Amino acid sequence: MPVNLQPPAAGDLLPVRGVLLGTAEASIKKPGHRDLLVMHLTSQAAVAGVFTQNRFCAAPVTVAREHLASGKGIRALVVNTGNANAGTGEPGLAAARATCAEIANLLDCGAEQVLPFSTGVIMEPLPLARVLAGLPHCVAGLREDNWLDAAHAIMTTDIVAKGTSRQLSLAGKTVTITGIAKGSGMIHPDMATMLGYIATDAAVAQPLLQQMARHAAGASFNCITVDGDTSTNDALMLIATGSSDAPAITDANGEAFAKLQAAVTGVAVLLAQAIVRDGEGATKFITVRVEGGNTVAECRQIAYAVARSPLVKTAFFASDPNLGRILAAIGYAGVADLDVRRIRLHLDDVLVAEHGGRAAGYREEAGQRVMEQSDITVRVALDRGAAAATVWTCDFSYDYVKINAGYRS
Amino acid sequence: MPVNLQPPAAGDLLPVRGVLLGTAEASIKKPGHRDLLVMHLTSQAAVAGVFTQNRFCAAPVTVAREHLASGKGIRALVVNTGNANAGTGEPGLAAARATCAEIANLLDCGAEQVLPFSTGVIMEPLPLARVLAGLPHCVAGLREDNWLDAAHAIMTTDIVAKGTSRQLSLAGKTVTITGIAKGSGMIHPDMATMLGYIATDAAVAQPLLQQMARHAAGASFNCITVDGDTSTNDALMLIATGSSDAPAITDANGEAFAKLQAAVTGVAVLLAQAIVRDGEGATKFITVRVEGGNTVAECRQIAYAVARSPLVKTAFFASDPNLGRILAAIGYAGVADLDVRRIRLHLDDVLVAEHGGRAAGYREEAGQRVMEQSDITVRVALDRGAAAATVWTCDFSYDYVKINAGYRS
Repeated sequence: MPVNLQPPAAGDLLPVRGVLLGTAEASIKKPGHRDLLVMHLTSQAAVAGVFTQNRFCAAPVTVAREHLASGKGIRALVVNTGNANAGTGEPGLAAARATCAEIANLLDCGAEQVLPFSTGVIMEPLPLARVLAGLPHCVAGLREDNWLDAAHAIMTTDIVAKGTSRQLSLAGKTVTITGIAKGSGMIHPDMATMLGYIATDAAVAQPLLQQMARHAAGASFNCITVDGDTSTNDALMLIATGSSDAPAITDANGEAFAKLQAAVTGVAVLLAQAIVRDGEGATKFITVRVEGGNTVAECRQIAYAVARSPLVKTAFFASDPNLGRILAAIGYAGVADLDVRRIRLHLDDVLVAEHGGRAAGYREEAGQRVMEQSDITVRVALDRGAAAATVWTCDFSYDYVKINAGYRS
Repeated sequence: MPVNLQPPAAGDLLPVRGVLLGTAEASIKKPGHRDLLVMHLTSQAAVAGVFTQNRFCAAPVTVAREHLASGKGIRALVVNTGNANAGTGEPGLAAARATCAEIANLLDCGAEQVLPFSTGVIMEPLPLARVLAGLPHCVAGLREDNWLDAAHAIMTTDIVAKGTSRQLSLAGKTVTITGIAKGSGMIHPDMATMLGYIATDAAVAQPLLQQMARHAAGASFNCITVDGDTSTNDALMLIATGSSDAPAITDANGEAFAKLQAAVTGVAVLLAQAIVRDGEGATKFITVRVEGGNTVAECRQIAYAVARSPLVKTAFFASDPNLGRILAAIGYAGVADLDVRRIRLHLDDVLVAEHGGRAAGYREEAGQRVMEQSDITVRVALDRGAAAATVWTCDFSYDYVKINAGYRS
């Protein structure tokens, strides 16, 4: 079960003026599940996004990048789950384009004004006929108050739906932000990792929105790992409909930009952490904080070595303070001139290691107490500089193997 | 159970003239198991080795490097299992030195002529008194015909002992090579990975022996991964006692060097593959071959991305031809200018993917048939150059989690 994660209830996800959402059961993978989502945007909406850096990126990622670059205003997003339309070559690209064309037809816009997204099994042909048959149902059900349905429609192995809302005041006017996301395997960043959609009714010029999307992804989805596998389909999309009464944000140095960016980033962090809390088989949520480094890059490198190590992750699963495994991961992270005698390792408030070995005052009972918690912070102080980085991960359990050994069946 | 791996039987491991071996039950971790090994070498033996690149390298690794560099002839090696003496700071170094001093006392040589090795749990103090108490038993039992006992004495989570012998003729004289090794978790190379000891009665000058050790490690222990964790204690040692009647090898370009190096490398490859076949929880042995690359480095990078991916490894465990996961791993390996449309992916003899997607002739039944084998080759043709690399790995099973969640208990 997800670790300390409350799924959103009806009413928790606030409507965002300018965004309508409709879902359908299209039987893309198996019948009886919502697996198709259409988001319809008001004509003045701006859209920005970051995508996977996987070279085998999915057909919809290629098409979405093209359509975003075309400069035509984006009017709709379409998401299917159950099939990733990745590793599908030219037929996959044709299927993604046909999906956009059908939405364009239904919503009376250009095909280039539609962004497609897919998630699910890789290297199987998209069942295009079923997708096309489902789209009219999505369009018929378009509603502003439909975010929870949408959060459900994009799930794959997620146990719970993920979404959050917050409101803030810009120039005295209330602005709403609502975001949804899905995990929960093949989670390792190389820009964004997973599918995430965040919409606000604030008005933001497109280049500033792109800057905001990059910032939010960098502080959230690019700081998590479940299994170290970077998906072919990851995308984080940020939508600003401009439907609120707040004045348009056009100055990247202004206060409104900073406030909105902080709030959007907060939503993104919460969604990213929700993905880890519902990581495949997760029973623990682990924050790995590396500080005192020369560069952020080396701090991230060490944090990811710890967060990815199967030996560290199985020790967390077992609540076993076998913490030498953390030292080993720090040691092999690839920071060549690391002086391990300066490193201090804390598990929450417990000093575990210093001077190249176990701390004199460390008692196994103290480590054991922290290991039994469901939320744990590993803190590594390098004592060689002022940079820091944080990564979130989960433990590695029998259920991870079970879920992934049986995913397609 | 180990995958298609026959453990050596009595008589399979041939004595190497100039090497005596003795073991003991020293109760280092728990009573009733052989956990201490002393190898005593003839005075003219040459010794070479490669060690872990982990920055948190163990105390015995530090001491062994020092002693090798001292230039004194090495007369003994001592190995304990059950405790890695890693992440143990200054007291760990003192314990390793005290162990060497006691052997030196027992065998009447200098402490710098002894190389110490440890494997087991990290960041727990070495129970030095028990090690010291066990050493006289090892020395009392020193025998030439004792390799199988030695192979047992260095095991940790290994299910079976690992060792092999071969003989060859150099200048008409028979030369013997015998090697033993232990795995079977924390297996990922960054020079050597694990403990391996290979001895021959050939005579080889030390610098040439070092060159041979590097070559053998590069083609064997540096081509395997079980869990992507690089140990703090890895070492591969190559011993040439010079006790055979074959003339000394002093020319790195001569035929005798080439023949011996090929045979030693063959032994190392077999031991390395044995470690993977007995990898923690392994049910499949997988060869990942990447060819047609621009450089060996990029081929290794892609091969390791595939071989390390938990999603790929769980699919193998399940015999599920969910082969898109292999494409995803190729795509995120970090080769920036990779053109995925040129890649051809084979599973044994079955062409799975080309032109950026599933091959037209591919049928799931064919993939399924190969996935059900216990030995499988994944072949990735990049079609951009002439370089190639091979990596060996195993699948990821419930038992991996079970073994590592309960390792210390």
